Amino acid sequence: MNNSESNKSRCRIVVDAMGGDFAPQNSVVGAIEAYNLSKDFDLYLVGKENEILRVISENNLLFDKNFIINADEVIEMGETPTTALKKKQNSSIVVGANLVKEKKADAFVSAGNTGAVMAASTLIIGRIPGVGRPTIGAYMPNQAGVCTVFDVGASVDSKPKHLQEYAVIGTIYAREMFGIENPTVGILSVGEEESKGNEVTLAAAELIKKTKLNFIGNVEGRDILKGTANVIVCDGFVGNILIKFGESVIPFLKFKFKEYADKSFFNKLKIALVRSTLREILKDFDYQEHGGVPLLGINGISIIGHGASSVKAIRNMVLKANEMHHKQLIRKIETSIQKYSNLSD
Amino acid sequence: MNNSESNKSRCRIVVDAMGGDFAPQNSVVGAIEAYNLSKDFDLYLVGKENEILRVISENNLLFDKNFIINADEVIEMGETPTTALKKKQNSSIVVGANLVKEKKADAFVSAGNTGAVMAASTLIIGRIPGVGRPTIGAYMPNQAGVCTVFDVGASVDSKPKHLQEYAVIGTIYAREMFGIENPTVGILSVGEEESKGNEVTLAAAELIKKTKLNFIGNVEGRDILKGTANVIVCDGFVGNILIKFGESVIPFLKFKFKEYADKSFFNKLKIALVRSTLREILKDFDYQEHGGVPLLGINGISIIGHGASSVKAIRNMVLKANEMHHKQLIRKIETSIQKYSNLSD
Repeated sequence: MNNSESNKSRCRIVVDAMGGDFAPQNSVVGAIEAYNLSKDFDLYLVGKENEILRVISENNLLFDKNFIINADEVIEMGETPTTALKKKQNSSIVVGANLVKEKKADAFVSAGNTGAVMAASTLIIGRIPGVGRPTIGAYMPNQAGVCTVFDVGASVDSKPKHLQEYAVIGTIYAREMFGIENPTVGILSVGEEESKGNEVTLAAAELIKKTKLNFIGNVEGRDILKGTANVIVCDGFVGNILIKFGESVIPFLKFKFKEYADKSFFNKLKIALVRSTLREILKDFDYQEHGGVPLLGINGISIIGHGASSVKAIRNMVLKANEMHHKQLIRKIETSIQKYSNLSD
Repeated sequence: MNNSESNKSRCRIVVDAMGGDFAPQNSVVGAIEAYNLSKDFDLYLVGKENEILRVISENNLLFDKNFIINADEVIEMGETPTTALKKKQNSSIVVGANLVKEKKADAFVSAGNTGAVMAASTLIIGRIPGVGRPTIGAYMPNQAGVCTVFDVGASVDSKPKHLQEYAVIGTIYAREMFGIENPTVGILSVGEEESKGNEVTLAAAELIKKTKLNFIGNVEGRDILKGTANVIVCDGFVGNILIKFGESVIPFLKFKFKEYADKSFFNKLKIALVRSTLREILKDFDYQEHGGVPLLGINGISIIGHGASSVKAIRNMVLKANEMHHKQLIRKIETSIQKYSNLSD
């Protein structure tokens, strides 16, 4: 690995080959597919070398063995994150995060144990100075174009100043990744009126008002799919429940369609006719399209995938990491956080 | 009006004729439709007498004028609840709630200003002894049969003991109204494991464990549409955001269908073919079917309707109030709350 200055503009992406329910198959194939699309970044695969080589061979892929970094241990999906990190120092997650920490890589991508990837990113790579809490942003399907929600589960019991940080980080993310010059920022609440909210959101709204962000005040649950704001901030407890509810809409609709089809042969025919139409219309709800979610506020790129990530999801995560690098997202977040860091003191 | 003992078994329902975006039309027509279905309850219409009479006449309805209670003032949808209640002592909401307080009626049904109806119910009718916070329950469409969420917006910043109350009240509601002998109760959180949650939910789970309720622990956002629990408890901040998000799913799908149809003539044809199928499948998401939501924990029946309530929604709200009365829901909640009131001390 090369950590010289000349490599700075070329993104060095480490993919956790062992992460996800379908690892190493999906992670290895997805990562190499992404690499083959542009080759304008360096791809490192971290995990059990023999298993990685087996997947490469079985899928008739070409990959330079020098870019495989062996890590003998695997943190399983069900393990307690902090315990696992301490115990498995040679796991793909710990080794991958360390490469970013040591500036030997710019980005870490994993569909492994979410808690462990979050903890490794936060504790090993470390936070950007001034950031109290890292945050996970999720893209939500919506009518207006771009709507991202921060935080969807990096932490709970956020303080008002953390919601302010999410507003700053979310603004940079929406601007850089979606090209929105002056993204609107809303705070998720129980009514549009300024007086509506809980203790934390009411105080957070006052803090966000002090920034120069394009703050539009309170937004409601119904405003997410409407796309009323480009960036919607909330505590990770609320955001996590929301995105899991949102993810369950498609399986629920599928269940209802099946229930309807099972009632009669005629119903079955009707459903068969509409199936492809529905799939096309509902693909916005398919999280595999968007790949993983970025953990922002840490001092490097970290993208966390769904445990059930497909090859396509992994490929999209790797491409997103590369894009984030070229858009200098981490440095831009650092600059903005410093600008506003005195406001909440 | 008669407040003698002999009338106790026959439910006396007061409907706010002036409540809702389409009042007095929908509230008057819906209430009388409900009355005509069974006539086994007494219906009182409260509001501007001349307007009520006009709607009755315009719609060729029959209604005994003695059951119209004049109230000259109207609390508008946008007014600040507590100020409006103080200022408009002769509003339909204040007059209606007072009839329940004075035991001249058993139930109050309104699609008016939600905050004002909640405040009038809580402050005028009053809470059941032992109840710290009244709670609004909402029925959610789901795969398993019955799933109700408490609280969806009666209050925010709930304490752990309030979530315990919601669990008790929700259990009685699911048992009496849906006939589930031993309803399962889950607490909405960010993971299934007992260690997952925020400060309030972790403490609330410990309190709920002390009851004899059928507590199944944490449930996640995706468990709502799955119907993993019959009763799901959460703070009103989270619940309110969730149901508003849920209500926005159908309008969002309609938007997507329209967007798709507008792309080509062939697409338009496909959508035309599937429209009725979709409507049938998605009717579970139509809140008008379920009528309003009950405000529970107060010392009388109070049902709050959506501002946009249809005639059908009002009709269903009145029928639900009658059912709640016959099932002695309020007395059963009182008994259960007393049973558990010492647990959280």
